[in-house]
Amino acid sequence: MCGGIGSRFWPYSRASRPKQFIDFLGTGRSLLQMSYDRILDIVPRENVVILTNEQYASLVREQLPELRDDQILLEPARRNTAPCIAWAAYHIAARDPEASIIVAPSDHLITREAMFRESVLAGFDFVEANDALLTLGIKPTRPETGYGYIQVGAPVSGDIHKVKTFTEKPHLELAKVFLETGEFFWNSGIFLWKAETIIKALREHAPDVAGTFDAGAAAFGTPEETRFISENFPGCMSISIDFAVMEKAKNVYVECVDFGWSDLGTWSALYDNSPKNPDSNVTQNCSVIAYNSTGNIFAVNGEKLVVVDGLKDYIVADAGDVLLICPKAEEQRIKQMVNDAKLAYGDKYL
Amino acid sequence: MCGGIGSRFWPYSRASRPKQFIDFLGTGRSLLQMSYDRILDIVPRENVVILTNEQYASLVREQLPELRDDQILLEPARRNTAPCIAWAAYHIAARDPEASIIVAPSDHLITREAMFRESVLAGFDFVEANDALLTLGIKPTRPETGYGYIQVGAPVSGDIHKVKTFTEKPHLELAKVFLETGEFFWNSGIFLWKAETIIKALREHAPDVAGTFDAGAAAFGTPEETRFISENFPGCMSISIDFAVMEKAKNVYVECVDFGWSDLGTWSALYDNSPKNPDSNVTQNCSVIAYNSTGNIFAVNGEKLVVVDGLKDYIVADAGDVLLICPKAEEQRIKQMVNDAKLAYGDKYL
Repeated sequence: MCGGIGSRFWPYSRASRPKQFIDFLGTGRSLLQMSYDRILDIVPRENVVILTNEQYASLVREQLPELRDDQILLEPARRNTAPCIAWAAYHIAARDPEASIIVAPSDHLITREAMFRESVLAGFDFVEANDALLTLGIKPTRPETGYGYIQVGAPVSGDIHKVKTFTEKPHLELAKVFLETGEFFWNSGIFLWKAETIIKALREHAPDVAGTFDAGAAAFGTPEETRFISENFPGCMSISIDFAVMEKAKNVYVECVDFGWSDLGTWSALYDNSPKNPDSNVTQNCSVIAYNSTGNIFAVNGEKLVVVDGLKDYIVADAGDVLLICPKAEEQRIKQMVNDAKLAYGDKYL
Repeated sequence: MCGGIGSRFWPYSRASRPKQFIDFLGTGRSLLQMSYDRILDIVPRENVVILTNEQYASLVREQLPELRDDQILLEPARRNTAPCIAWAAYHIAARDPEASIIVAPSDHLITREAMFRESVLAGFDFVEANDALLTLGIKPTRPETGYGYIQVGAPVSGDIHKVKTFTEKPHLELAKVFLETGEFFWNSGIFLWKAETIIKALREHAPDVAGTFDAGAAAFGTPEETRFISENFPGCMSISIDFAVMEKAKNVYVECVDFGWSDLGTWSALYDNSPKNPDSNVTQNCSVIAYNSTGNIFAVNGEKLVVVDGLKDYIVADAGDVLLICPKAEEQRIKQMVNDAKLAYGDKYL
């Protein structure tokens, strides 16, 4: 899945080139490309399916030129994850009704890839043998208030447990309790299931969405699929797979994993996961001369020199036509800033 | 005089387009153009002479297209103000041995232009009637430590006094004393004299410099002048007119004036002299959305949007390939920063 607009990283991530298409970690590969490389250890190339907004078709083709056009599913409208995952499931089931699927966001970081592969293979074994919807729960390392948590229930097999509850993002005190109990894991948004299992769950818990795709069953895997989607996908309700299915279904399991994961959902997360200069600054794509400045993240496009004095724990993001300077601790304001920029200047700086 | 490189305003002012060529105050006219407009109230257009480094020939021609080529004197090397002023004096004297001259920097701000004109006309009356080197001394409004001061001696005529001493930039306590006594005026670097008076003073106090120009006396005002300058100007010592002449000569006078002057020599001076937004920020050529931010100056080239949170009393200067973020109180470090950038990257960012 790589259709998000990454507005929390504005202006470095822009609607026209969101976060997942950027070489965010300076590795030479975008987050999408890193996710793709990681999945190729598990899934044959010809079975990889990319879901994105049609706006990003050329970015995906440019970054993953080895994929066939029919491996890139272009959403004609933004409808959150449930319709996206539903389309993928119907599309894949049309090709192989017995397929198993891993659903993964394209903008996350995973540092221990061998362990990731092991966890996913164990998860596939489980969902292939059981009528199960499996989510990967990440062992928390800090009382993070930016993630949802999954409370684990009875152990079932290996690292796999029944899910007791899904929780919303907790406040700090609650997050500390979650961490201490050892029963709560971060909700990674990575899922494993058989195509038939998720389709059955959609029919039961999200009949609106499933109904749309069932009506076009004959089109999937045929030249008709694109026309069917362009006519029917925009009519789907916009809803996440968590709300639509995971929090309602009874056959939901969590595999408790620990493979060095971050959703890179915030500048602070990116800062934490990036190599630091000796002065604890992080620089993205730019040269920095810093005086009395520590704990900053500089994300500046191009061959730009940044000279900075007396700045501590700031985000400095320059995207050519927009410069953002904001304390890391205030980054939750960025969405408001994007809105204010839109009110003042329309779409010019989005 | 408009040959300076304006390094204190780096990176907004660059070696390739220094401060005097920039519309620094957002008036639609560069500082050079504003200075030229101001002088045209006093000096006929055909008598204006521009001195600049040959590097800036095209900038001057572009900004002052109404001048003839022989009104633009191009220095083949940077030699501070004494050789520059000497050349101008010999050049003008060759055309009119009885000429009077006002020497003015091109990058200063003067807000009360009618009063400026009155002061200059009174000064011309004085230097035309006397063998006098006259400097304009600005009535100080604060204990500024960034300027040299002139201590006035006995009154001579109107606002004109003998000069008692020239002082270096004082420390703050001394500057406060200067302000209280009422005897000290800011050294503006604006001079009035007859051509013959300054040439005589150069011969007496800077015989090296005068000797160079005396040797070429026949060339001034002829087609030979350019060749003579290109061969001989670089051999002049680099020295200011203050050191070379004003601090040595006996016939030095100061006219005490008060016409709203700033040398715009620092970001803080520019901030003080610029219109403020309601949140006390100053913006140059850019749109700014500011949160919890006051007292900043944003100097950003082009159509850029700056979004800033939690910044107080900073300079934010963006020149396309260089971004500077520095507390206003630390701006004396900027020269060091330019040096550091040069050490690290050569001339690339100068």
